[in-house]
Amino acid sequence: MFDNLPTTGFLRHVRACNRHDLSGFRAFSIEGVTVGQVRTGFMERLLTLGLPFLPDAGGITLHPGLDGPQARTRAVASALERLVADGVIPRLRGEMYGVTAGWGQPLLMEMDRAAVPFFGVTAYGLHVNGFVRRPEGLHLWVGKRAMDRGVAPGQYDNLVAGGQPAGLSLPENLVKEAWEEAGLPAEMALTAVPVGTVTYLMEQEKGLKPDVLFLYDLELPADFIPRNTDGEVERFELWPIAKVAASVRDSDDWKFNVNLTVIDFLIRHGWLTPDHPEYLDLCRGLRR
Amino acid sequence: MFDNLPTTGFLRHVRACNRHDLSGFRAFSIEGVTVGQVRTGFMERLLTLGLPFLPDAGGITLHPGLDGPQARTRAVASALERLVADGVIPRLRGEMYGVTAGWGQPLLMEMDRAAVPFFGVTAYGLHVNGFVRRPEGLHLWVGKRAMDRGVAPGQYDNLVAGGQPAGLSLPENLVKEAWEEAGLPAEMALTAVPVGTVTYLMEQEKGLKPDVLFLYDLELPADFIPRNTDGEVERFELWPIAKVAASVRDSDDWKFNVNLTVIDFLIRHGWLTPDHPEYLDLCRGLRR
Repeated sequence: MFDNLPTTGFLRHVRACNRHDLSGFRAFSIEGVTVGQVRTGFMERLLTLGLPFLPDAGGITLHPGLDGPQARTRAVASALERLVADGVIPRLRGEMYGVTAGWGQPLLMEMDRAAVPFFGVTAYGLHVNGFVRRPEGLHLWVGKRAMDRGVAPGQYDNLVAGGQPAGLSLPENLVKEAWEEAGLPAEMALTAVPVGTVTYLMEQEKGLKPDVLFLYDLELPADFIPRNTDGEVERFELWPIAKVAASVRDSDDWKFNVNLTVIDFLIRHGWLTPDHPEYLDLCRGLRR
Repeated sequence: MFDNLPTTGFLRHVRACNRHDLSGFRAFSIEGVTVGQVRTGFMERLLTLGLPFLPDAGGITLHPGLDGPQARTRAVASALERLVADGVIPRLRGEMYGVTAGWGQPLLMEMDRAAVPFFGVTAYGLHVNGFVRRPEGLHLWVGKRAMDRGVAPGQYDNLVAGGQPAGLSLPENLVKEAWEEAGLPAEMALTAVPVGTVTYLMEQEKGLKPDVLFLYDLELPADFIPRNTDGEVERFELWPIAKVAASVRDSDDWKFNVNLTVIDFLIRHGWLTPDHPEYLDLCRGLRR
């Protein structure tokens, strides 16, 4: 879809997560507010379905007669089922994401997670860098994703990471994901410290991912061993920070966006320093 | 120069540091590389001086016959003296900043610090948040700037902060500034951890400030008392983090860009959390 990127270095991961060409997209709006962006081809497919979709000046919108979040959610869900049946989008996940005008804004509708990138709607997630301070230096817990995962099978991941479903607060989701993914008791999960965000805009075959990742640092006791409970992680390993950094820099073994959350960790903990030639571009590139 | 900003909140400080209208600026370039931006009025004044300044397609450049950094530095310094004599720019500071195509790139010339914003050249600096972990919570050392300072007299500042002069490495400048501003011995200063950058683009009466601040966190022992040695700081106070946050949020008592370095500290240390309505805009706004 785009020109090739170099095969080593940190910055290439930032660039990979920000490759996009918006010229092939039109706005998806609700009640006059742009909430996403759709490929023109997908937009035309939606318009052949008819209601609830209507063309508007910027692209596509929902019928204004749909009164409120529940009515919009139901009408779109029904259309999504037809798109799945027609093979336009993959099967739904049964996990609903919120569609809003921005983080903390009122819910406009909910949409199945599988459809979110097709509509270019902002997806929120949380990523926890679980680390241990050992006498010989900082160590990071690394999860190897199960081989049967739809996204990034077998690739390395943070100790805990997950999309933000509608109807849960971030701390609630943190506790849930920390238990499911790493067997962390709630009281331990809630010691995770929010430390900022990574944001990027990535074009994929299916559409557009304007993602927001809320980052947490979680310092773990030396004797704690994470244990996956939901089958999403094959195994956990505790890596010295230098091994983590070299792996991110020199391989493509990590889930695409986890490269960014790890680079942010390396910067905030002083492992990546201003004398690195990519430092300033990395600091800037992790936010958009 | 611009519309008014609200008088409370964190985000107004980010916006204040990023207010600019580039339509009144033209490029300042060296050997075909844009290294700054000058107001059209200032550019015209420079062109009346003649050499070393020449008009080019994008705005203004230096005579290509000036061979190398030393020749450019000398020729521009001579022109600056005339501008000072004519009252166009304030008196020079005697502290030289490097002009490059980017951080870590080869030096193209040096320019007196006082002239840098007139040429819209990127200025680099370092800011150290000096903090103490007390049983009752995080505390931050706050410096009150001397009343005779040219910039931000009497306002609050980081424990250590300073512009990055040409010819010093960042660690060298850290050691120098830490001693001059806060009486920190070198071995203590060098325990400061680089934790990222704050970058902004601010238009001022004199021109444009596309500034890059390298941030350091320095955890200090509970019994260390900073002591200013160069007269730039009137006094230091150790504030609980909640007092720091409230002061930044509700007052204009802090030097304009120190608001941003403190907000970054509040985010990285989990004091400002994702449930704050400005959180995402703050995370994004601290880099550009």
